Order: sequence, then structure tokens, then C-alpha cells
Amino acid sequence: MSAPIRIGLVGIGKIARDQHIPALAHCDEFTLVAGASRNATLDGITTFNDLDEMLAGNDELQAISLCTPPQVRYGQARRAIEAGRHVFLEKPPGVTLSEVEDLYRRAHQAGVTLYASWHAREAAGVAQAREWLVGRSITRVDIQWREDVRTWHPGQEWIWQPGGLGVFDPGINALSIVTHILPMDFFLTRARLEVPENHQAPIGATLDFTDANDTPIHADLDWRQTGPQTWRITVETRDGTLVLDEGGSKLFIDDELVLDGDDVEYVGLYRHFAELIRAGMCDVDIRPFRHVADAFMMGERVIVDAFHD
Amino acid sequence: MSAPIRIGLVGIGKIARDQHIPALAHCDEFTLVAGASRNATLDGITTFNDLDEMLAGNDELQAISLCTPPQVRYGQARRAIEAGRHVFLEKPPGVTLSEVEDLYRRAHQAGVTLYASWHAREAAGVAQAREWLVGRSITRVDIQWREDVRTWHPGQEWIWQPGGLGVFDPGINALSIVTHILPMDFFLTRARLEVPENHQAPIGATLDFTDANDTPIHADLDWRQTGPQTWRITVETRDGTLVLDEGGSKLFIDDELVLDGDDVEYVGLYRHFAELIRAGMCDVDIRPFRHVADAFMMGERVIVDAFHD
Repeated sequence: MSAPIRIGLVGIGKIARDQHIPALAHCDEFTLVAGASRNATLDGITTFNDLDEMLAGNDELQAISLCTPPQVRYGQARRAIEAGRHVFLEKPPGVTLSEVEDLYRRAHQAGVTLYASWHAREAAGVAQAREWLVGRSITRVDIQWREDVRTWHPGQEWIWQPGGLGVFDPGINALSIVTHILPMDFFLTRARLEVPENHQAPIGATLDFTDANDTPIHADLDWRQTGPQTWRITVETRDGTLVLDEGGSKLFIDDELVLDGDDVEYVGLYRHFAELIRAGMCDVDIRPFRHVADAFMMGERVIVDAFHD
Repeated sequence: MSAPIRIGLVGIGKIARDQHIPALAHCDEFTLVAGASRNATLDGITTFNDLDEMLAGNDELQAISLCTPPQVRYGQARRAIEAGRHVFLEKPPGVTLSEVEDLYRRAHQAGVTLYASWHAREAAGVAQAREWLVGRSITRVDIQWREDVRTWHPGQEWIWQPGGLGVFDPGINALSIVTHILPMDFFLTRARLEVPENHQAPIGATLDFTDANDTPIHADLDWRQTGPQTWRITVETRDGTLVLDEGGSKLFIDDELVLDGDDVEYVGLYRHFAELIRAGMCDVDIRPFRHVADAFMMGERVIVDAFHD
């Protein structure tokens, strides 16, 4: 076993505290040696004001994980790559497709690993769902991704701003699973975006996709669901129906629960990041993000009631 | 010299009559043998009601040129590819990036040519502009693309509908030139879209891009310009300034007119299409379209006065 990879975390907010720090603590492949944040500190870890100070003050740092909002991610990722560090990107990997392509090219040239992570793909049932679908004839796909934005993004202004993606911030998780488990590519044919009159980004979206065989693939994304939350993907095939529920942690085949796993998404992500670094590879799958761009470009926008956090 | 390629034209509207039919008449590489249109006919050419009738009634047809609105282009292109025909796409090549990727994959598998054309790249000054810029150090790029939509798209409802792209319909021409002549890739950092209160698509847009060297690349797109029209790209370099004016037909270096060409864009496109067919290749450069998707995804939308044709 090689020595753990020395990693620094940039952006010590909700996602860092809820997911990244606990995952790194469970992951032998990494040692968290530094943090960077304008106002937060971490117990027992050297904390810098920003990425540049962290890079300057820490020659032995090998990798950087970016938990900052997507609007500032490109500049940080670029400086980390230029400084020869491996980079882990939270989802979505940026605010434009073109900047992600640019980072990918830079990482290749610099010989460092760039990992555009999709945490939902590491949910417990996803790998088995993907395996089960290989060779099966798919007749219909339905995605229901409904949650309460007040619970999951309290006071986070950036989600409503241009580049923040609105309800596609959770919705891209569903798209990252579906692009991963379905054996065929698919593309958008119709999109309807519901935009609150006081915001730039949609709070709800209805999407219709299709594929080479005209399979109907439908998605309802909503950020206004109070009470029980819904993160469910249903895939009907000629010999049975697969359901990934609770974000992918529960897998049902023909209504029978075949897998009910713990939430270990971020441990899985960091294990994969370590493998990529050891192998000298990048992993940048742009497809979930491209579907979102397509929805913004061709979607019909409908103005709905103002939304206040 | 091989026999001319037998080609059929789908969608006999303004662009077909203004550009495609005259260009094909001047192009020895092709013979126009069929047209398809719901309501228009062509003198001396067999006209079918739609693409399917044209394909069924014409075994010797080798290539199809699609001059239909982008919203219906995918289905037509797919059926033509499945029928083993080479396909020429007007710009933009579709309504989503993912469907263009799908067509590209299908064309490859079917062994036919798919050409996603960008007519502005064939403007007289573009090739020389590209050549002049090789190896030069670029310090600033400015794009001014201002025209009167009432002149260029009279009564065309599809341009305002989802998937119609609004002012990006002409603006993508500028982007197709700039992606072609600049030696480096670039990406959007800020976008502002002006959307009439009675439409879905923007009538104006301000875009800021940058590149690996932080070069400022600015674009103003506007559909409300009456009087003289402006289609100008200025590229400042450390040793001189290049201006492509009038859509690329005039080339100036340091204010000196070095090239003033005729409008032969579509003849150039069809010559290139013929070369691709003879070589068994595809030409699908998605970058101009990807920049537009990026602008829709990350752009700030501002509602402006209603616009009536």
C-alpha cells in the first residue's frame, strides 16, 4: 500500500462538512492536510484564507478538492492544475461546458488527474442497477426527483444566480445516474422550465428525452416538495421493472427490494479519485451537464410564483 | 472528374431559394434532382410532399440537404442517414448538443457523410484571416453582430420559439468564424440575454469570453439594428489589427483593405460537402453551438420590451 495522498479542501461549507470531511476520515488513500476558506476553520487542520495561500504554503500538497460554488470553480481548478496538483471537482464541474473542456485539456497537458465527480453514481444500488440493465430491452424510463430546497440549500444564494442551475443542481444527480446505468445514449426532445418571478434559475422542470429506439424517457424535477422527499428512477424493460429509490441507495426489481445500502457515496468518490491518481488518468464525463445545457437552450420558460427562502 | 452527386433539398423556404438553389446551380459536383416541401414547388425539379416520399420515390438520390427549421432537423437527418444518404445540415445543426452527437454517431455507423455546415466560415476573407493569425499574439477580440431581424427573418415564428435561438441564430455565424480563425480555444465567462416580454428567445446578447492567456473576447449581438447593418470581428494582436467586416467578405489589416470578395459562401459549402463525401468523412464541429448552449445555461436573462414582427 502506497503512502496516503496529501489533499487540501477548498470551500468549507455545508457539503464539505456533511460529506467530504467525514469521507476523507474514512478513506485510507488520503490524508487531509489543509483547508482554505474565507471564514471557516477546521479543528486540527491548517486553514488558509484561500487556495493561493494554501498552494504557496504547502509544497507537499498533492491534490485539491473543490467544494466551492460552481461559479468560482474554474479559476481555482486552473490554478491548482497549473501548480501541478490533482483536482477533484464537485458536481456540476463548472458553469459552462467549454470551460470544463478547457480544464480537461489543461490537466492532460500538465499530466495531472482531473476528476469531475458525480456523487450520485456512487449510491449503493447504482452499480448493480447498471449491471442488471446490460442486454435488457428498455421500454420506458421515468425519473421523479422532488425535494425541498429550503432543507437542502438553506440560504445558498448562488443556486438561484446565473450559473447556479436551480433545480438542475439536484436534477443533475438523477441525470448522472441515468447516463451511467442506461446502456444507450439519449437526448432531450422537449423541456419546460418553471422559473420563479424573482429568480434567474428554475425551481421546477419537466423533461422528455428519447434514444435511438424512440424509448420515452421522462423526468420531473421539483424543488417545492415538502414532507417526504422523492428521488426515484424507474426503468421498465421487457422482462421486469427496475426501481432505484432514495437517490439510488435502494434497488427494487419487480417490487422486490434487492439492495438497501448505506450512504457511502463520498467514500466511493475518493476511492475512485485515488485510483485515477495512481493510474495517471482523468475522468471527465460531460454528458449529465450537456443535458442540462440542452434543457436551458431549448427549454420553454414559464414564469411561476416568486420564491423566498 | 467523377459523376455529379444526386442531391435532394428538403424545406424550400427563404434560405433554400436565396442560397442553396443558386449555389447548387453553380456547383459541378452536384445535380439537384428532387425537392421536398409541404407547399412550395421548384421549376423543372420533381417535388415531393416530404422527405419520406422523396426517399421512397428516388432510389438514385445520394445526398440530402436540410434547409428546414432546426426543430425538425434531427428526425429528418436521422431518417436520411438510416436510408443510407449523405446529409448536409444548415446551421445550427439541431436544437440540442446531444442530438447532434447522436447524429454524428449514427452517420459514422452507417458509413455516410454528415456535414454540420457553418456558412459564415466560407465568407471570402475568413481563410486569409485564419492564416494571418497563425503564430500571432492576440491581445483582444471584439465581435459586433447587429442586424434587423425584420429584414432577415420576416414572419419566421420558429426563431422566437424554444430551440429557435433568437439573436444567436445570426450570432452563431460570428461564433463559427471566431472559433475557426482564432488559434486557441476560448470559453464564456459572462453572458447577458435580453428577452422580449412576449417571446422565449433573446433579441440581444452581450457575451464575454476568455482563453488560456486571459485574452478578453467580447461580443455584442443585436437584432434591433435598423439602417446600416454591422457584422464585424476585430482581432488586435501585438503586431497589427485584423478586421473582418460585412460578415467576413471584407478583410482589413491595420485599416488597409486587403480582400473584398464576392458572396460565394454556399458554393464553398457544397464544394466542401462533395470533398467529404468523396473522402468518406464527416465534419461536425460542435464548438459554436456549445458556446450558445453555455450562454443559455449561465446567462443572466433580462426582460425587455415586447417585439412584434
